[in-house]
Amino acid sequence: MTVYDIVKGLPSTHGDHYQLNTTTAIRQAARTYPEQEIVYRTADGGWDRYTYADCYRRVRKIGNVLRDLGIGPADVAGVLDWNSKRHFELYWAIPALGAVMLQMNLRLGTEDLAFVTDHSHARTIFVDETLLPVAEGLLAQGVGVTRWVVMSDKPLSEISTTLPNVVSFEELVDAASDEIDFPMIEETSAYSACYTTGTTGKPKGIYYSHRGIYLHGMAQAQCLSMTPDDTIMLITPMFHANCWGLPQSGTLAATRFVLPGRYAAEDTSELVDVMIAENVTIANGAPVIFEPMLRYIQTLPEKPDFSGARFLSGASEPPKSMMRGFFETTGADIVHGYGATETTPAVSMNRGIKPSMRGLGEEVRWDQKRSQGLPVSGVDIRIVDPAGNDLPHDGVAQGEVLVRGPWIVESYYDLPDNDERFLDGYWRTGDIGVIDEHGYLKLTDRIKDVIKSGGEWISSIDMENAIVGHPKILEAAVIGVPHPKWQERPVVLVHTVDGAELPIEEIHALLEGGFAKWQLPDTVIYVDAIARTSVGKLDKKVLRAQYADLYEGENS
Amino acid sequence: MTVYDIVKGLPSTHGDHYQLNTTTAIRQAARTYPEQEIVYRTADGGWDRYTYADCYRRVRKIGNVLRDLGIGPADVAGVLDWNSKRHFELYWAIPALGAVMLQMNLRLGTEDLAFVTDHSHARTIFVDETLLPVAEGLLAQGVGVTRWVVMSDKPLSEISTTLPNVVSFEELVDAASDEIDFPMIEETSAYSACYTTGTTGKPKGIYYSHRGIYLHGMAQAQCLSMTPDDTIMLITPMFHANCWGLPQSGTLAATRFVLPGRYAAEDTSELVDVMIAENVTIANGAPVIFEPMLRYIQTLPEKPDFSGARFLSGASEPPKSMMRGFFETTGADIVHGYGATETTPAVSMNRGIKPSMRGLGEEVRWDQKRSQGLPVSGVDIRIVDPAGNDLPHDGVAQGEVLVRGPWIVESYYDLPDNDERFLDGYWRTGDIGVIDEHGYLKLTDRIKDVIKSGGEWISSIDMENAIVGHPKILEAAVIGVPHPKWQERPVVLVHTVDGAELPIEEIHALLEGGFAKWQLPDTVIYVDAIARTSVGKLDKKVLRAQYADLYEGENS
Repeated sequence: MTVYDIVKGLPSTHGDHYQLNTTTAIRQAARTYPEQEIVYRTADGGWDRYTYADCYRRVRKIGNVLRDLGIGPADVAGVLDWNSKRHFELYWAIPALGAVMLQMNLRLGTEDLAFVTDHSHARTIFVDETLLPVAEGLLAQGVGVTRWVVMSDKPLSEISTTLPNVVSFEELVDAASDEIDFPMIEETSAYSACYTTGTTGKPKGIYYSHRGIYLHGMAQAQCLSMTPDDTIMLITPMFHANCWGLPQSGTLAATRFVLPGRYAAEDTSELVDVMIAENVTIANGAPVIFEPMLRYIQTLPEKPDFSGARFLSGASEPPKSMMRGFFETTGADIVHGYGATETTPAVSMNRGIKPSMRGLGEEVRWDQKRSQGLPVSGVDIRIVDPAGNDLPHDGVAQGEVLVRGPWIVESYYDLPDNDERFLDGYWRTGDIGVIDEHGYLKLTDRIKDVIKSGGEWISSIDMENAIVGHPKILEAAVIGVPHPKWQERPVVLVHTVDGAELPIEEIHALLEGGFAKWQLPDTVIYVDAIARTSVGKLDKKVLRAQYADLYEGENS
Repeated sequence: MTVYDIVKGLPSTHGDHYQLNTTTAIRQAARTYPEQEIVYRTADGGWDRYTYADCYRRVRKIGNVLRDLGIGPADVAGVLDWNSKRHFELYWAIPALGAVMLQMNLRLGTEDLAFVTDHSHARTIFVDETLLPVAEGLLAQGVGVTRWVVMSDKPLSEISTTLPNVVSFEELVDAASDEIDFPMIEETSAYSACYTTGTTGKPKGIYYSHRGIYLHGMAQAQCLSMTPDDTIMLITPMFHANCWGLPQSGTLAATRFVLPGRYAAEDTSELVDVMIAENVTIANGAPVIFEPMLRYIQTLPEKPDFSGARFLSGASEPPKSMMRGFFETTGADIVHGYGATETTPAVSMNRGIKPSMRGLGEEVRWDQKRSQGLPVSGVDIRIVDPAGNDLPHDGVAQGEVLVRGPWIVESYYDLPDNDERFLDGYWRTGDIGVIDEHGYLKLTDRIKDVIKSGGEWISSIDMENAIVGHPKILEAAVIGVPHPKWQERPVVLVHTVDGAELPIEEIHALLEGGFAKWQLPDTVIYVDAIARTSVGKLDKKVLRAQYADLYEGENS
């Protein structure tokens, strides 16, 4: 638990009892922009639309359904669903009663998902018909769920499942009254829960507050310049980090929405077609989503005009070629955003150069856009050395990135002894980065992946980025391998297009300029595939274990 | 005091200890945009500029000066100054210590200003050299101020004043260290105080919280789409309603600023010249400021390009001719904003039509822009009948406007028995208005000015607006005068260009269409001038008293 020394002044005469909560956001959007559209994908793969007024009417009905199911303040209800209209409604309805919406990550293994279900004490699960096998898997793990609410357009009698205590969402909603007086929820109450997909140990619970979600929403709306003329498509899963907070920021700014439901990598072209048809101006995704989109767009005889659009790209550094490609082909701005489950997630965003940097050359400007950008208004960022001392903002000094603010985690849920993740009231991100003289944050590595060699740090990410620039190299991973003399040495794993091996000089040539001579790897290993985690990141924990003994017995 | 029933949920793991306070805003702006400019008018009438980094450095020095003067948490320090650089710095420095910045309204009479000084227990006053006579006037009233800090470019030895206990601001700042560790201020603590200029009774104290100021700032930044590419000129006085919150919202969004110092109505042309030279994109003022600006602009051989600018116009309804004139001549959008000292002030803003209204004709769109607009994200607005029942949003039903939200007053400072200004947790604005089917608020009158006749309401403002449309009529006031049969009847006071009187049929003709036959006034009185308040509003209290007996003895 993190605490601050807080000084009290004179009491004010202002709205200090009025609580920030998400119900205000949807209620006001429905009142002020009742006609604003929410476009969604239907179960049969088609598209339909309704309005904020329709949505809020269903939210009120769902509120009564939840009450009838006995769900109230401090209860937890889980959701197993895609980016659907019903999921969007549950985002508002569950927290409106003071209950917590548990985001159930479909990418977790069944054991981990069962752990999350029971660790959060979820008793009710809302499950989309297509995800019944996942729910049945949880049941087989013996989770303590007492009620399953199936979401489908079909009547319950046509649903086939082994789950007990099943009720039909739509039947209950149909029968419910739309009159309800939602209470004012104390703002530090939990709004939703999301568990990390950490590669070490069990998933860790982040319980977002109504306050943090609201403030994050306002800051994100401001930072992305959202207005009711915008249309947001929610591409990243709604079961992760509140879909990056876009449902809430967009609703606070009364934007239109497009909910693409379930989609897979091969549906990229359909996503793009809908973005064009619905005039999408804001969307979120990882480069792994945006890159195939760009490739598809480049095949179109008539290029879409996305001028003024802000496509928020997270998870990893967007390639410059992708950012330029989007801009030059469609006019869209790829906005690199940085954050984590623990940070709601917005920590920093890169909306391009500052007014003071207008004189910079084009190439420098594109390089600048790859960085993690500037802090979102409200977040304090520091970079510190291993002793916790602040490092200069000179673009060179690398340190661990620390963050704090009203939507940054202060503890993990029901997890004692997590003090090592906090320092002086800041959350330790576990990322290594530099801050340049303009204030831009640039990550260079994960603290556990950085290579500690000869008393200095070598960035594994910088080295990987340089190496994958080779036309014959498909993917590369750089890991620190224990070395008797140097503490660690970089070892490069390379997966080439044709399986052919390259002379080490060719690898060294790629690193020229960016790396000192002593930093160059002595060992390059050619492989057919590189281990990745469930979310597609290089699994360096596995790789390090695999090659841990490589330099054993090396002459020290 | 207003309270709500608040429901507690599960505790969250998030930033619930991190307090929202204004120090975060200026510190982050200075860290992230250190080079961003603040342009200000100097004492000699010239213009100079410095940066956020320079400003925050002086704020830290002033923090040490304040500490040395013994000013700390819950103390009150007053400021008597124009829209200056020093005033801007004191906006941050005084509250950074947990003290309250008292905004001293130069338009108040000396007795009222002395009342404000003592009611707030201000012991220290910061006074600009040019305002020493005002301070000396307060001294003559026997206020309990124990220290006067004179702000001037001259040394103290060259300042001539009868004030005792005088120190020089700049000498103290020069000598102070810029190292200070500002504490985290509890967010419900008072940030600043501003007293109403109410025409009835003594001024009433509004003590804004850090929390309310921060949240208002984020909402205003979002609503006005502020970015670091914007330049805000603060035109309305900084001693009123925190200059409409623009210093804080702009700093949260890291905009440039232009501080015009002291200016008078005859300086309009210089303001416009600076707006052009400094590329101002956001400014605030009343129509009485913007109208002469437009007239000046229309004399310029080359019209300025203010495309994309948002000029926030408050205090009274902006004339359509002025809004069209600005847009057609310069491309600037006049944004009608609604609020009060009690509301920090943003309640609603009119950024033009909604996406759903694009099909409306041009004339309808301009009419729509005159209304008070849509609620700013975070503010709840209701209109209610005298019994407190909600009225339909049909553009016809008139009711009192009630507002609540995190930056709306919940009580008056040290003023018992003010419950009649609050209803169900909402502040009663005292304004009468309608909400149309699109959600736009449109004020029709003040509740004390509306004419209650024959069991119905007649809007005095609508009638005045219709009457001043006559080319020979300079100004008009409509008041309700007690009538033995009808409760009240409208009486029209008219000031014509040439003093000539018009036949009453000509007045009735102006009201045709907008008013029912029974609403038409029976009495029109021609006058040479109409009483106005210190801020230039029609002084209907005086007028009503003057004509109270007009219908006495009328056949009931």
